[in-house]
Amino acid sequence: MAVRLAPPPPLAPIAGVRLATAAAGVRKAGREDLVLLELAVGSTCAAVFTQNAFCAAPVTLAKRHLAGTAPRYLLINSGNANAGTGAAGIEAALACCAALAGAAGCPTEAVLPFSTGVIGEPLPVERITAALPALHGALAADAWNAAAQAIMTTDTVAKGSSVCVSTAAGDITVTGIAKGSGMIHPNMATMLAYVATDAAVPRGLLQRCLERAVAGSFNAITVDGDTSTNDACVLMATGQGPVRVDDLDDAAGQALQEAVEAVCRTLAQAIVRDGEGATKFITVRVGGGRDTAECRQVAYAIARSPLVKTAFFASDPNWGRILAAIGYAGVPQLAIEGVTVHLGDTCIVRGGARDPDYTEAQGQAVMAKDEITVQVALGRGPAEATVWTCDFSYDYVRINAEYRS
Amino acid sequence: MAVRLAPPPPLAPIAGVRLATAAAGVRKAGREDLVLLELAVGSTCAAVFTQNAFCAAPVTLAKRHLAGTAPRYLLINSGNANAGTGAAGIEAALACCAALAGAAGCPTEAVLPFSTGVIGEPLPVERITAALPALHGALAADAWNAAAQAIMTTDTVAKGSSVCVSTAAGDITVTGIAKGSGMIHPNMATMLAYVATDAAVPRGLLQRCLERAVAGSFNAITVDGDTSTNDACVLMATGQGPVRVDDLDDAAGQALQEAVEAVCRTLAQAIVRDGEGATKFITVRVGGGRDTAECRQVAYAIARSPLVKTAFFASDPNWGRILAAIGYAGVPQLAIEGVTVHLGDTCIVRGGARDPDYTEAQGQAVMAKDEITVQVALGRGPAEATVWTCDFSYDYVRINAEYRS
Repeated sequence: MAVRLAPPPPLAPIAGVRLATAAAGVRKAGREDLVLLELAVGSTCAAVFTQNAFCAAPVTLAKRHLAGTAPRYLLINSGNANAGTGAAGIEAALACCAALAGAAGCPTEAVLPFSTGVIGEPLPVERITAALPALHGALAADAWNAAAQAIMTTDTVAKGSSVCVSTAAGDITVTGIAKGSGMIHPNMATMLAYVATDAAVPRGLLQRCLERAVAGSFNAITVDGDTSTNDACVLMATGQGPVRVDDLDDAAGQALQEAVEAVCRTLAQAIVRDGEGATKFITVRVGGGRDTAECRQVAYAIARSPLVKTAFFASDPNWGRILAAIGYAGVPQLAIEGVTVHLGDTCIVRGGARDPDYTEAQGQAVMAKDEITVQVALGRGPAEATVWTCDFSYDYVRINAEYRS
Repeated sequence: MAVRLAPPPPLAPIAGVRLATAAAGVRKAGREDLVLLELAVGSTCAAVFTQNAFCAAPVTLAKRHLAGTAPRYLLINSGNANAGTGAAGIEAALACCAALAGAAGCPTEAVLPFSTGVIGEPLPVERITAALPALHGALAADAWNAAAQAIMTTDTVAKGSSVCVSTAAGDITVTGIAKGSGMIHPNMATMLAYVATDAAVPRGLLQRCLERAVAGSFNAITVDGDTSTNDACVLMATGQGPVRVDDLDDAAGQALQEAVEAVCRTLAQAIVRDGEGATKFITVRVGGGRDTAECRQVAYAIARSPLVKTAFFASDPNWGRILAAIGYAGVPQLAIEGVTVHLGDTCIVRGGARDPDYTEAQGQAVMAKDEITVQVALGRGPAEATVWTCDFSYDYVRINAEYRS
């Protein structure tokens, strides 16, 4: 069902990162559902987490551990979100971290836990801890593709990306994997992304690099507008490669930033392409705003509107719905006479009304494609923003109505 | 398809109000699609309109006319929204008002135009004006039910309500009609409501009365979260009955306010019950907030969530999705330990996690009903708010995907 989304090619190993996967039977027997990621001593680690007030137990614990010491291990399970589980959920996540720390010989705080899957079920701690010694023994540099597969829940295609850029000091390699099939599924909770580079990057700089990259990737997508209890995105730098970055704005820093952004953008778009029930991949580009915030506001109003999304599913060039969404986005003093809307290369709205040269046949020709760009010009400034989304189909309703049955 | 919604009983005439309907062939031949409402000289009139920046031509013109003189006529067509039509749309609406003014012998500004239907098509002015003389000749006091029928678009059931309350000075009668099948449909654009009373009410007071009533009725519903280009709600007072209201807080004023609120609430709930594809009517009540705004924020987050709404469609007590929606509503410093959630009378979440006594069978029993209340206690203050919504079904996708085909 995914829109033009192939499984990732063999992902490039990152010196200083090893991974392993196992079938621990978290929710279903015989399915790979556990991932261990090891970072070499001296690595730095940055992360962003869900803003949801009901964040899951592993999110709470990962934040706490990250504030303490430099992480050596990321322990990720699918099949169970360990969310809505109260104090017992924290205990469960902590027990997994402690068991791994024992097997690996590191402090418990050096382990970051992550969970994705059903909300409200107790985490099967014993099944997870039983798998840890073998998991630790199986760590290998080339297991990125297997890890991408093991963190999937309702995803239909594994998601990964590698980029290698050259700098004066040598190459920087960046590899990332993600899971998510919808921006957020509070239930199969939900988006996780792990990106690593072999460059050496001080932690503060790495956090800035991640936040910049996320703004134009994971924070620029929507499938259903819901935000999850478990979202997390981690950026790791091992320093085992030839390049050291001390300034994001010099040549090496820019190269790193661009590589990280490229990986994050590919992963974020893959999540939308694999959005629940998606049959179309839609880019909403809004320009001519006074600031980025109002452009994003308009882009999200369009990208979230169920009426716009069902029209895309029906391949119906129903420009009135796009116009209405722009109108209710809440941009102060928006002069509709200045607004232009293109569907693909076809101008459909000019001066706030239907372009006199527009024909329904033109609109239908654009709508028949499975990748569509909506371009809005607000005509009141230089700012712009882009958001990616998918359409809203019968299958979205089916997947979410039948999810637990 | 509507959830427990019967056509209105015979609606009570309001002294000083006459109505007529006609089949003008605005979009389809042989369907009543034109309504004329006449107000006696000396009536007052209050209105609230859509906040959409792309408001339709008739909204722009009705606001302008209302600011000028006291209205004598409301001219309402279904089948065409006269939206997204630019300057030509204003000309078209004005031409209809002028034609009616000529037939009725009043200033053009004394006519308020309203349109609902497809966006972006030119209004068929000649077909409308041709019907006006006969329409004006047919005005009668008992045509409220016919008018409720004629303003329908995708509605499956006509919507009307009458309330009569007694005061020391005599009775106050309030009658109202509305159309809408979804909070908003930018396309079949969209919610219109007309409410009249025989009480005498100065205009400023009438506007306050309307705004209070709308806050707890039309502004407390959502079907799909989209807001329309054409929404309007008009409250008219003819002063032909025995009661004069000069203070909304004295006995007569309270009686009026309560009657108007009761009519508006019935109409608003009827819109949700007739929501596109609705199979369930859902009341979301949020209490224990610091202020009404944050309670509404949480209620709307739940009521708008596609994940929550598809779970209701599937009769799935998927409380994790409700919890996640509360969490992303954006309430600052929300302590999840203080949150309680009831589904009907069943406590599902206590202290931010699943109630230990909750069983899936209990949740399923509530979910099997077609009227369901979700009750959230935030545990941080005395404020509360209620929002009404419906579920999200295959039929919602079908209706909105196939709408123009």
